[in-house]
Amino acid sequence: MTRKILVLPGDGIGPEITAQASRVLAACQAQGLDVEVAEAPVGGAAYDAEGSPLPEGTLAKARAADAVLLGAVGGPKWDKLEDISKRPEKGLLGLRKELGLFGNLRPALLYPQLAEASSLKPELVAGLDIMIVRELTGGIYFGQPRGIEERDGQRVGYNTYVYSEAEIERIGRVAFEMAQKRGKKLCSVDKANVLEVTMLWREVMERLAPEYPDVALSHMYVDNAAMQLVRAPKQFDVVVTGNMFGDILSDAAAMLTGSIGMLPSASLNESGQGMYEPCHGSAPDIAGQGLANPLATILSVAMMLRYSLGEPALAERIEAAVGKVLDDGLRTADIAAEGERSVSTSEMGDAVLAAF
Amino acid sequence: MTRKILVLPGDGIGPEITAQASRVLAACQAQGLDVEVAEAPVGGAAYDAEGSPLPEGTLAKARAADAVLLGAVGGPKWDKLEDISKRPEKGLLGLRKELGLFGNLRPALLYPQLAEASSLKPELVAGLDIMIVRELTGGIYFGQPRGIEERDGQRVGYNTYVYSEAEIERIGRVAFEMAQKRGKKLCSVDKANVLEVTMLWREVMERLAPEYPDVALSHMYVDNAAMQLVRAPKQFDVVVTGNMFGDILSDAAAMLTGSIGMLPSASLNESGQGMYEPCHGSAPDIAGQGLANPLATILSVAMMLRYSLGEPALAERIEAAVGKVLDDGLRTADIAAEGERSVSTSEMGDAVLAAF
Ligand SMILES: CC(C)[C@H](C(=O)O)[C@@H](O)C(=O)O
Ligand SMILES: CC(C)[C@H](C(=O)O)[C@@H](O)C(=O)O
Repeated sequence: MTRKILVLPGDGIGPEITAQASRVLAACQAQGLDVEVAEAPVGGAAYDAEGSPLPEGTLAKARAADAVLLGAVGGPKWDKLEDISKRPEKGLLGLRKELGLFGNLRPALLYPQLAEASSLKPELVAGLDIMIVRELTGGIYFGQPRGIEERDGQRVGYNTYVYSEAEIERIGRVAFEMAQKRGKKLCSVDKANVLEVTMLWREVMERLAPEYPDVALSHMYVDNAAMQLVRAPKQFDVVVTGNMFGDILSDAAAMLTGSIGMLPSASLNESGQGMYEPCHGSAPDIAGQGLANPLATILSVAMMLRYSLGEPALAERIEAAVGKVLDDGLRTADIAAEGERSVSTSEMGDAVLAAF
Repeated sequence: MTRKILVLPGDGIGPEITAQASRVLAACQAQGLDVEVAEAPVGGAAYDAEGSPLPEGTLAKARAADAVLLGAVGGPKWDKLEDISKRPEKGLLGLRKELGLFGNLRPALLYPQLAEASSLKPELVAGLDIMIVRELTGGIYFGQPRGIEERDGQRVGYNTYVYSEAEIERIGRVAFEMAQKRGKKLCSVDKANVLEVTMLWREVMERLAPEYPDVALSHMYVDNAAMQLVRAPKQFDVVVTGNMFGDILSDAAAMLTGSIGMLPSASLNESGQGMYEPCHGSAPDIAGQGLANPLATILSVAMMLRYSLGEPALAERIEAAVGKVLDDGLRTADIAAEGERSVSTSEMGDAVLAAF
């Protein structure tokens, strides 16, 4: 059965990096991977072309796909859009919500070849390998009511941070299962000393724990988690948290590696359908110049093969190819040490294909 | 006119560290500072003694005081209290709210003598001096409605993230004025691409900016701010943000220095009345052993002298005394390098008094 992959290049460096990832997908096809690859617009590019950051046609194609590969969305060009429902980010949030992609996996992995890139002392990050499991379709990102309105003669802005037991349990299970496959340690991050919604979060995690007796569950307040990530990040194996805290902590964790241009991510729904994207953003300042690092997007293809297409062997081949080009000393500008020669986006793609 | 200071030792290491700070206050009195110092219970200690983490008597004394010095609250002993309104943290949150202490100043300052303690590479943190201005009486910490309730057969937890224009403007002015006295750079942190409440936040900051033409205002999303703190913290001068983001970012920033045992904080209301406390917590694991670092609390006294008592000269003398003991190589266990000899809480107090 031919599976369907939808590529959404998006904005900024999105088209350049997905172009390289598509070449890697094509190489997998040449090795017998039976997939059909289509492309559609999303984000600011879709707004410019069709007046919406998530056109109906794009959404329909995404629904029909087994997996989606996204570049990145957003840029200063659209930041001032009065109608915020038209902003590029709404395309991304809409995809997450419409496809039910509640389980966001964000690895923070330090490549030994790039250990020097971290702003932390080498001994604190050597071998760093954290998996952040972020809830992606609930919490304050989507909670109702929300808005800005007039109350007693002045404007008031408000959002609602809300989780149901079922939502917490669902992401909790993803995290416990992930911990079972990894180091068997799960740290749940909340602010249960202040926020009721996270008291419920903690309670549900506690209730699930006996079903996963091989996993050691701990709890940490979000402020402490932000500190511990800076102080001693290797204490973490799997971290599970809500949408907002996950946004903050996963970016901090990614930056610990010093090479956010290397980090892929996966967002999964209950049936294993997934959207895959690099952790970094659309980098409008370097768009179109061949400077972007395509490796996070290429590694996102590997995650796709592993989590949505059931092709772990191909996933490992891609990861090995990336390891090889790093061993060979190839660096795009973002991961090049001072004074080191750097290669272009497409030269990096060439090298990965050659090593594949 | 004799001014009133209320000392609230609290829990864990609170009594030990406030004891040393009280000695420094007494030394200031000996130098002519006209204050009357009283003590009262708060937090878990107050719950144990009087059944409430913020007894009426304590609150009344706090209201009548010109300044409050707080040790720390909380500990595992009270974490399982069924009635969460009785938890130690509620004493602290109640004080903030009842006294209207909306302006929380959290410096993240690297002491050159302790540069090695940072987990970041020395060149990235040398000379680090950030001031985080956190809104402290609004936002999701206090927003209504909040709770846990049954909906459609399952429990749901919810909190409300809310700010009015007036609340935003008030903290914005504190931050702009702080920036005027410092490096004239203000970074406002929000999540305006997702949360309406922070769109209003950004709008109000923009509206204030022309009144402070000497301050360069910038905006950053909270996820990016968490990354930038790890990547290149020296880019920041003053940071202003809401209660929740401020909780997370100020702890991350404090940890960048590697010596959170050194960092004081101030929480001010509209009339300059303030509560002063160390950034670190109650450290129940080392309580009562003479291991705690009293310097953050002693430096909180300096902040009190500067912000609530109008005694900048005495504040500087305390800060200079702390600098001197560090120069002399005195270290409590938390800031001692591996293998270095450390002094006790009271020995550190002795040394500061001797240098005063
Ligand atoms: C672009 C933005 C809406 C998004 C988020 O906040 O989720 C991004 O920061 C991310 O983490 O994927
Ligand atoms: C103890 C807790 C309620 C408090 C907070 O979250 O504000 C603490 O973390 C702080 O930052 O002062």
